[in-house]
Amino acid sequence: MNDCIFCKIINGDIPSIKVYEDEQVYAFMDITPLSKGHTLLIPKQHVQDLLDMPAELASHLYRVAPIVAKAIYNAFTPDGMNTLNNNGAAAGQTVFHYHLHFIPRYGEEGLKWVWETTQPSQEQLQAAAQAITAQLNA
Amino acid sequence: MNDCIFCKIINGDIPSIKVYEDEQVYAFMDITPLSKGHTLLIPKQHVQDLLDMPAELASHLYRVAPIVAKAIYNAFTPDGMNTLNNNGAAAGQTVFHYHLHFIPRYGEEGLKWVWETTQPSQEQLQAAAQAITAQLNA
Repeated sequence: MNDCIFCKIINGDIPSIKVYEDEQVYAFMDITPLSKGHTLLIPKQHVQDLLDMPAELASHLYRVAPIVAKAIYNAFTPDGMNTLNNNGAAAGQTVFHYHLHFIPRYGEEGLKWVWETTQPSQEQLQAAAQAITAQLNA
Repeated sequence: MNDCIFCKIINGDIPSIKVYEDEQVYAFMDITPLSKGHTLLIPKQHVQDLLDMPAELASHLYRVAPIVAKAIYNAFTPDGMNTLNNNGAAAGQTVFHYHLHFIPRYGEEGLKWVWETTQPSQEQLQAAAQAITAQLNA
């Protein structure tokens, strides 16, 4: 897409620091990393988010994901790693070209979250599941 | 694995509220959801985390991911959605069987984070990329 910063990175119009590339996907260093080794994996095809991703492309991207994750682990031996994909501004997406964050964790720095769980009833959970499966079967 | 709660869920030894199932993966409602529709997608095979996931299994799981994501969207029309995978206790993993969280976002509830970016130099980013690519090529 003409005005997409990640498309420009893939086309070489904007420089980036490449980690991995094949015919379908591209991985590069996040320039405002949350921690050392913070990497982004994106499809070369312009796809807005996970919802818009064709099955074959999603399938290939995640085939590559463990390889990238392992390389980051072997390079920096973090204590842990989050992989995160944000869909929609309300979920923190700022570039509207799908990207999967690999965020190595070394302690308390970088990404912190408040994980506020709720306690729905069994009936509420079943109703939610039925609403989802109805869509899966639609 | 004998003492794995998610293996017990797959085997039916612990009840769960199913959303999706095929030969390789299983999706069900998180019983302590961050928001309405919070769903987990897991491989049936016991795999500790993304790093340990065989390529074919990862590939299949993420082929299913957009389908599950879209069904949750269509069911609840959230404003956004995060998909998150935590690897290692330091990254917030509490069940050591790979799982991908689908966390619908409706506003400020549930998942909140502090996204504290850093500003490494170009040289530092290049050194990080070289360390990763060295592992990719190892």
